Formats: sequence, C-alpha cells, structure tokens
Amino acid sequence: MATDLEIARAATLRPIAEIAARAGIPDSALEPYGKHKAKVSLDFAAEQGTKPQGKLVLVTGISPTAAGEGKTTTTIGLGDALNARGTRTMICLREPSLGPCFGVKGGAAGGGRAQVAPMEDINLHFTGDFHAITSANNLLAALVDNHLYWGNELGLDPRRVTWRRAMDMNDRNLRNMVVGLGGPAQGVPREDGFDITVASEVMAIFCLASGLDDLQDRLGRVIVGQRRDGTAVTARDLKADGAMAVLLRDALAPNLVQTLEGSPALVHGGPFANIAHGCNSVMATRLGLSLAEVVVTEAGFGADLGAEKFCDIKCRAAGLAPSACVVVATVRALKMHGGVAKADLGREDLTALRAGLPNLLCHVENMGKFGLPVVVALNSFTSDTAAEIALVRDALSALGTEAVPCTHWADGAAGASALAEAVGRLLGEGQARFRPLYPAEMPLADKLRAIAREIYRAADVSLPAPVAARLDRFEKAGFGGSGVCVAKTQYSFSADPSLLGAPEGHTLPVREVRLSAGAGFVVAICGEVMTMPGLPRRPAAEAIRLDAEGRIDGLF
Amino acid sequence: MATDLEIARAATLRPIAEIAARAGIPDSALEPYGKHKAKVSLDFAAEQGTKPQGKLVLVTGISPTAAGEGKTTTTIGLGDALNARGTRTMICLREPSLGPCFGVKGGAAGGGRAQVAPMEDINLHFTGDFHAITSANNLLAALVDNHLYWGNELGLDPRRVTWRRAMDMNDRNLRNMVVGLGGPAQGVPREDGFDITVASEVMAIFCLASGLDDLQDRLGRVIVGQRRDGTAVTARDLKADGAMAVLLRDALAPNLVQTLEGSPALVHGGPFANIAHGCNSVMATRLGLSLAEVVVTEAGFGADLGAEKFCDIKCRAAGLAPSACVVVATVRALKMHGGVAKADLGREDLTALRAGLPNLLCHVENMGKFGLPVVVALNSFTSDTAAEIALVRDALSALGTEAVPCTHWADGAAGASALAEAVGRLLGEGQARFRPLYPAEMPLADKLRAIAREIYRAADVSLPAPVAARLDRFEKAGFGGSGVCVAKTQYSFSADPSLLGAPEGHTLPVREVRLSAGAGFVVAICGEVMTMPGLPRRPAAEAIRLDAEGRIDGLF
Repeated sequence: MATDLEIARAATLRPIAEIAARAGIPDSALEPYGKHKAKVSLDFAAEQGTKPQGKLVLVTGISPTAAGEGKTTTTIGLGDALNARGTRTMICLREPSLGPCFGVKGGAAGGGRAQVAPMEDINLHFTGDFHAITSANNLLAALVDNHLYWGNELGLDPRRVTWRRAMDMNDRNLRNMVVGLGGPAQGVPREDGFDITVASEVMAIFCLASGLDDLQDRLGRVIVGQRRDGTAVTARDLKADGAMAVLLRDALAPNLVQTLEGSPALVHGGPFANIAHGCNSVMATRLGLSLAEVVVTEAGFGADLGAEKFCDIKCRAAGLAPSACVVVATVRALKMHGGVAKADLGREDLTALRAGLPNLLCHVENMGKFGLPVVVALNSFTSDTAAEIALVRDALSALGTEAVPCTHWADGAAGASALAEAVGRLLGEGQARFRPLYPAEMPLADKLRAIAREIYRAADVSLPAPVAARLDRFEKAGFGGSGVCVAKTQYSFSADPSLLGAPEGHTLPVREVRLSAGAGFVVAICGEVMTMPGLPRRPAAEAIRLDAEGRIDGLF
Repeated sequence: MATDLEIARAATLRPIAEIAARAGIPDSALEPYGKHKAKVSLDFAAEQGTKPQGKLVLVTGISPTAAGEGKTTTTIGLGDALNARGTRTMICLREPSLGPCFGVKGGAAGGGRAQVAPMEDINLHFTGDFHAITSANNLLAALVDNHLYWGNELGLDPRRVTWRRAMDMNDRNLRNMVVGLGGPAQGVPREDGFDITVASEVMAIFCLASGLDDLQDRLGRVIVGQRRDGTAVTARDLKADGAMAVLLRDALAPNLVQTLEGSPALVHGGPFANIAHGCNSVMATRLGLSLAEVVVTEAGFGADLGAEKFCDIKCRAAGLAPSACVVVATVRALKMHGGVAKADLGREDLTALRAGLPNLLCHVENMGKFGLPVVVALNSFTSDTAAEIALVRDALSALGTEAVPCTHWADGAAGASALAEAVGRLLGEGQARFRPLYPAEMPLADKLRAIAREIYRAADVSLPAPVAARLDRFEKAGFGGSGVCVAKTQYSFSADPSLLGAPEGHTLPVREVRLSAGAGFVVAICGEVMTMPGLPRRPAAEAIRLDAEGRIDGLF
C-alpha cells in the first residue's frame, strides 16, 4: 500500500493561482510561497467582510485512541465531496506543529487520498507562521528579562513572572529551568520554562485576532507577571506589543493550498486542542465564509475539547454561528473505548463495540447542547463488519442521528459523497440554533463547573484554595467575562487518560489557572497534562532523512 | 532627510522573475516568496557548477566604531556601479539577524540609496532560513536530552554535553541556565545555555555546505558532547542528522532579491563575524560566480575578523580565490580611532585622523598577506574636509594603495562609479595571488598564534592549561587539520574593545575552545565576547510598531 508521502508525491498539483481564481481570490490578492502555497492578502480579506456569508460546518470526533480516527482526512474528504457535487466549499484547517511531526504522531496534512498538499512543506516550515509566533513570544520574554536587568522601573516581581518562553518542538527538558545564572552581567536568576508554541498565548491571540489592529491591541493586553502588590504588568507597559505585531504581520494573512483533488484549503494557525483552544484562525474561517457557500473546518482532538472550545471561545469571539456538526468515529476506536487492545482490533467484537459506543453517543449528545444538528462520519476500515456498522447506526438512530460510512482515505471525494449528501440535508433543513454553553457573565469557577458537568459528565470540579483564590483575583481585576480554556488529556472525558468510554461521576482536578488577557480566556490546567510535550523513546525524527535525490524520506 | 525605510518604501521594485532573468536565472529555477523575493533552486545551482567562473571581490572594513562605516552600503553601491558600467555583477550578502534588529544596531539591508529590498522582509523573517537553522539546532538539543531521559544507551556524560540551544534573539538571560528540573518525569537536570542562532555551528555548516549531501554529512559529524572516557558522541550517533537536514533542505537554496537600482543580490546565510565565521553561504557565492562576471561580497565587522575568516575558512573550504579586496573606511571612524568622541566628529581634526589612520593602514597591509590587491573605499560624510580626505589618500598612496571617496548612500550607483572603476582596474591587472594565512597541517595552537601575530599584531597568545589540553585532545582525535575561528570583540585588533587604533604588543587571551567538527573548525573564544548578546536599556524594539495602515514603523 502506498504511504501518504508516496500518494502525495504522485499527485499533480495545479498552480496555486488557478486554485485561488476558482475560489474567488484574484491574483493581485496572492503572495505566492513557491508554486503551490500562497498567502491571501489582509487587504483582500478585509474587503470581503461585508459579502454574503457561507455556512459553517464543524468536524469533530470521539475521544481519540491509538487506533486513529481520521478527523483531518474526513474534513478534507467532506470538502472534496461537497465540491464534487457542486457546492462551492472551502476547507479550513490548522497548521501542523513540528513537535508531533518529529515525535510520535507524525504530520497533520490528512492521509491517503484525503490530503492537503504539498504535505512536506505544510508539515515542516510551511509559510513560517509558527516561527513568527515563536519569535514574537520570545521577544516579549527577552524584553521582560531585559527590563529586570536594567533596573526594573516597572517593579515587576521576578518570582511572579508568568510569561514563559516558547519553542515549536517536543522538548521536556525545557519545562522547568532556572535562567539568568552566571552573575550580575549575565541576567537575573529566576525560575522559567518553555511551552510548545502551539500552547502559547501568542498562538491563541493570532488565531482569535480579527485583523492587524485587533492583533496589536490584544498583544498589548498580555500580562507578563505581577508586582509584589499583585498588580499586573503588561506587554504594553514594556512597549513590546508593537514589535510583536510587526513580527506577526505577514503571518496573519491566511495560507491557501489545495487538496489532492484540487479543493481550496486555508491552513492557518494551529493551537493544540488539549492544551490550547484547538482551531484554525478566525482570519481564515471568515475569509472562507466570505468566498464559499460552505466552509468545512476541524476542531482538534475529541468534541469535549476541540468542539467545546470552538463554540465557546472561537465562535463567541468571532461572532460565528456554525450550521452543522460532523462527529468522526471508527468502529476500531470505539472497540478500544470498549476495552480491546490495539493488536486485537482486527476481529469482530460486538460486545466491546457496545461497551465503547457511549463515548460516541455522549459526544453527539453534547453537540446538541450547542444547538447543532449532527451527523456521524463512520470512517471505515476493511476490518469493520456489517454487524458492527449496523450496531453503530442503530444506536445513533435511537438519538435521531444518522451515521454514514466513509472511505475517503482510500477513495477520495467519492468515498465521502454519502457524507456530503447527509451534511447537505442538514444544512438544507436549517435546524441549527447555535448557542455557547455558558453566558459570558457567569463567574469563572461556574463556567468551569458547567463545562465539567455538561460536557465531561463530571460530578464535580476540584479547585484547590490557591486556584480558587486566583480565579477570584481574575474576577476582581475585571476578567470575569473571559472564556475558559481547559487543558486536559484528550484521551478521556475525564482528566484521567485511562478512563475510556464515557466515564461518569469523576472529579475534574484543576491544578493551575493562567490568565490569557490578550486571548481573552483563562487556561485551566487539569490533571497531568503538559504544556510542553516530550519525545518518545524512538522519535519519528530518527527515521526522517534526505534520500540521494534530496527528497524527504520517513515523514508521515 | 528621508529614513532608510522611507526611501525603501518609495522605491518601485521590479518583479523578481525579471531580476532573475537578467541575471541568467530562468523562471523554472525560481521558488517565489511573494513578488520580490525568490529562492533559486538547488538543482539549477548544481547545474551551474561547471560554467565559467566570475571574479570574486571582497568588501571588508576597518575596525567598526559607533560612527558607522557602511560596509554593506558599499557592497551594494559597488555592485550597482559595476552593473551601471556594464559589468554583469552579482551582490552576495548575509541575511540579517533579529537580534541586532530589535537591539541597538538595527537592520542590515544597507541604507540610503544603497539598499537591498524589500528591506522589511529581509530584516524580519525573510524566507525563514534562520528559523530553519534554529529549528535544526534545537531538534538536536531535544534529541540529546531525550536520549539521556530514556536511559542514555550511548553513555553520554550529562556534564559534558557541549551542544547548546539556539534562538535568533538578543537574550542574555538565556546564556547560562539549569534545565531539566522538576523530577524524574520532567527530564535530566544539567547546565545548559542558548547561543544566538548566528553563532551556532548549524549556521556555520549551512554557510559552508556545498550541497544537500555535504550538508547532511556535516550535520552527522557534529559533536554533541563526550562520554566519561572523553570519546565523542555525534549527531549521527543520535540519528539526528537526517531530520536536521530535512529541516534545512529548502533553506539551503539561495535567496534572490534586488537593490533599489535593480541589481540582483543573493542574500543567504548570516553568521556574525565576531562570534562566528562572518560571511554568506558558499551556495550563494558559487551560484553568483557561475552567473556573473563579478561577484561583490561582504565579510562582517573589521578585516581582522571577517576578512581573515573569509579567506582562511570559507575560501579554503569552498576552493574560492578572491581577486581583489575593498577596505571600507570613513574619516569620522578613523577620527574615533584617533580618540575623538562621537559628539565631536563634525569638526576637522587632522591630529586625531593621523592618530587613527594606523587602524586602516594595518587592515590594508593585512589583506596583502592573503595575496589580495586592495582599494580603499572612503565612505563620505558631508562633514569630511578636503584636508582630511587628502591626508587619508596620501597615507595610503605611500603603501601603493588607492583611496576612493564614495557617496553611494546619497547618490546610489553614481556615488560609487569611481570605486567601480578602481576595482575594475585591479581586476584587469590580475595581480591577485590568493593564499590563506596558515596551512591546514599547522597545529591548532600555532594557527591561533599566526592569526594573533600576523593579523592582530599581538605579542603573544595566552592559552590557559585546560584550553591547551583541549586543543591537544582535538589534535589527537584527528581534528588538527581544522581551521580556527576566533570569537573576539570587533572593536579592536586586540581582545580589549577599548584599545582602538592599531595596538601592538598585546596578548590574545583564549578563554575557551569549542570543536565544530561539522563546520570543520575550532572556535577560540577570546576575552569577554558573548555568544549570546544582550539588549540595551532602550531596545530598538520599543519603537517598532504597526501604523494605522498596517505598515511597519521604527525599523531602521
């Protein structure tokens, strides 16, 4: 069987200007990056603001397992299939991070015949957006320490600096460190650490900004730490916001690429969904909606993480109202949720499937709480049996939800045509009554409780006294209207990655809360989740290299 | 008077494909990055290998002062002037680093009417090369620590890890740190630090590599540290070389831009000349020589640093033989070398000028030791008097060297036409007999002594016992044939930045030596020079921001 890389290499891509023209983007609005990637100018994006808006379809999924579910491939396959049946459709995806690419997960440009291309470029540096975000993050960090070094006029407490450095890499050794060692000429010693770039507030701001003005404003609001009296010091106080915005200016223009079947795709921004808000940029989604009849977009990891944040953070901030939702599941993954080991997934196992199904049902039911009609995409594997598929369809039909088997990985658009029809039906029926889960004015702790109870099915939230006190301080400082961005494991509804299926009665343990005043949310770190991942014993990087013709081997 | 940014903005740039075509680069060999930047494909560069070679002209300068000398503007002005008189000329420059851009020095794209454009892009992320280099450097660091974390099969001594992390930023707080804190799940505690990207061995390898194969080979040879028995562990041992090369693949293709007068310029790679080897990539210089009659290139800081390394490291490694050398000086800077403060430079002061002149004479004489004919470019300021200019010209004519006043900053090509004529004469005479300063087989300590005595005019080299022992170990391990890359202050021939003019009898204090086995040289850190700069009290970043139209303000 051909690998993703081989399929991608065999494809003939069209010049990006041709893809752009068909999507309604004139040549004058394109900044080409090579022959098959382009940025769409901010001026053009701004001009589209008043045009008729398309409909927004969210692709989300069950809680991920080691079996793989195929959310990105489904987003791409659905977009291709909608285009194939004559609906002008734009696909909106996140940019991949180098961390997973060199770690264990691999790239994030889809797979099989449902890929965005050129996959090597997209998976590596692409148009440099993440590097710009990393630079802006670290410029602020350098300005913080430089301010301390030169006398600390603002009175920032070095022990209360909350701004961390960032790197687009899985590097656990950078989680906790002491910097500024070596004596008075070398800096100011203090505790510090790096987060992966996709977890940084600059990434969140980049993805939520509505334009350059809003970007510079949000950057100015970033809080870098506190004085001894607890008052905040911001990036604006340090005069860092302007240079940060300058570093991000070109990056803020959305990136246009194509699928292997020639659909246009905007791939822009990429916060992780477990430790950040998990969806592509507002700039790209809005541009897509101004150009296409339908925008298909993805939120990361399970619907408890990605879809919840998509609705409560992104859609609320950008004034977006999605019209339908696709929940991706596989028979294999549901059997894993039912207790089967990965090695045994090849066998029919209706008992395990029945045990794992509640994970899917729970996610589907949750999406209804946002007022969204749902269709389930059952991403097919050759090992799926007719009885297994029937079991899933029957269970969903009891909820009034359709499940559509898909084979876009192997068959491209043709493999998702039934799904496209089902989505088309949902859009035609116009049943969506989108609403966020919680109102902005709800106290922060209650917002956390609402997410935990309604979405995670937790019995309670554990808020240690210092965490509760911190939330209280955020409220008093005027940040009570912020959203809440939960950072927790993606593997379970709970904060315990070993609790598969649909656990109930658990407690959500909030370990730490961080205020992202520029992004406009409070990050609640729950359980053991890390904002800087580590590499596995045998990182994917070990197998990646250039062959004799200078081509890339081992990227997947 | 218009700022550099205003002049650059007012210029009308030609499509990069037009610049390329005139330089002999077909459209098929271009990867556009926007409308005014492009990478020239590695395949095209490789095909040019056997074509007739142009002549190589090095632009270097006196020891820099706070008055500014204008080496980059002279390189650009000379290139424009040569093109204007019908000599097909390619300009080869280094890419700027974000460190100085946000610190005190500002950008590095020339100035006035002698600029490469688009200056904002070139000064900021450009085509992402430095970000790729940073990523490759830090991927190796992550793989080192990950190896220690997962059991350390290779037996690397955590106390003897010499590979440092990198960031393209001035950030003194990252010079010395302890990483891996927080317990067994968080890494392996050890001392660590960041260098600025332009000082990293990956930057040096990138700039010395002759192609992708050589790049991957050199990366494999990088030594990350030692075992307890002193044997080396390499990037190849860690299986890191392939993924590092993959990260650098696209970056290795040279970047083509244009001057404000439409000359082609390859701007590629950018090691600092004080803490690294100080010249643009071999890939770019070779490509330029295959296409043009003359390549004008710059080596960083004073001729003691940049030109010496250009000759002894770059030209030796790449088999290049320069044909002529331009030493840039200004009356103002020479008066500073003669003891005048910056505020007093507006007055004629022949005594101070006479006292400062030896700095220039010494650099000019030094270039003769490499077998290169020299012309001095006297970069003019309106405050220069006729008597001052005559004094400089007379002093040089006693050495048989011509000094040509230039006004390219204000006048573009026209202001450097006399210089272009003088350079043309030197090239026509064919007097160059290029030779490196020391033979490859000379012991490392003797190479250091040769540079110190012949170039720096030092009486001696101080090699503390541990440093001498380390050099000895490098020799025994088979690295005796390496070049030597001195890291020292750029402000003086000596390692003491306060010793201006042409000091003699000083001692070069070697503080530390590091083996760059992939780059093929030993770095000798002398005196107080830092491989990670700091920011000033009022960093340039504070004044940089987006204006209401989204344009960049405050970049210079």
